[in-house]
Amino acid sequence: MTFLLDERLAVDTSEVCLLELSYVGLMNDARYPWLVLVPRQNGLVEVNDLDDAGRSLLWREVEQSCSVLKDLYPQAKINIGALGNIVRQLHVHVIARHEGDAAWPGPVWGVGNAQPFEDVGLAELLGRLRERF
Amino acid sequence: MTFLLDERLAVDTSEVCLLELSYVGLMNDARYPWLVLVPRQNGLVEVNDLDDAGRSLLWREVEQSCSVLKDLYPQAKINIGALGNIVRQLHVHVIARHEGDAAWPGPVWGVGNAQPFEDVGLAELLGRLRERF
Repeated sequence: MTFLLDERLAVDTSEVCLLELSYVGLMNDARYPWLVLVPRQNGLVEVNDLDDAGRSLLWREVEQSCSVLKDLYPQAKINIGALGNIVRQLHVHVIARHEGDAAWPGPVWGVGNAQPFEDVGLAELLGRLRERF
Repeated sequence: MTFLLDERLAVDTSEVCLLELSYVGLMNDARYPWLVLVPRQNGLVEVNDLDDAGRSLLWREVEQSCSVLKDLYPQAKINIGALGNIVRQLHVHVIARHEGDAAWPGPVWGVGNAQPFEDVGLAELLGRLRERF
């Protein structure tokens, strides 16, 4: 069956690439370099809903995302989160945080409003991300 | 070298058990069933500071913690988070969330003040957790 990306995740992110398991989206929020990984299997809510192989693959893709962000932002503190209290479809956030960013040192979720990218800025960042995945 | 648990994590948690890699603590906050896993290697900040085997083991212990909480709280939505913006020592939160809890549907970090357990309640919960790890 075709994988269906949750509507809110589809609206809130721009596709970076598809990994073996996960859709990788960039959150449409210029305040933080913020990736969202969504395993492309319908009906997942918790990480433990994946089988053993799927979980291993998801974590490797999370680690890869951390490496990509750390390569682009060497000073960043990486934040990883799988919450799903609002959007139930299993997804994992991987965010490059910097001292003094809009939510620092708290978590990013639910803080203020997303700041849109400029078209050029978004295209450039997507390009730099895609080169590294 | 002896593993040194960060002072704030030591104060904020009660030891549940030691897994192969991680110290498992229960956050001293009766508002949520909230575990914190700390890999027992000094000097770790990011998940990717662990070697391949260490990362695999950490994620398996995170998954085990999810299972334990889901067994005790079948209705819970599990939240997983590795932030480390304040306490730099690598640690992973695994939290059983419920609709209407003190921070629902937002994240738990930085919301209000911890609510102390009663002695009996804490001992009982630690016992139930230890039975399942």
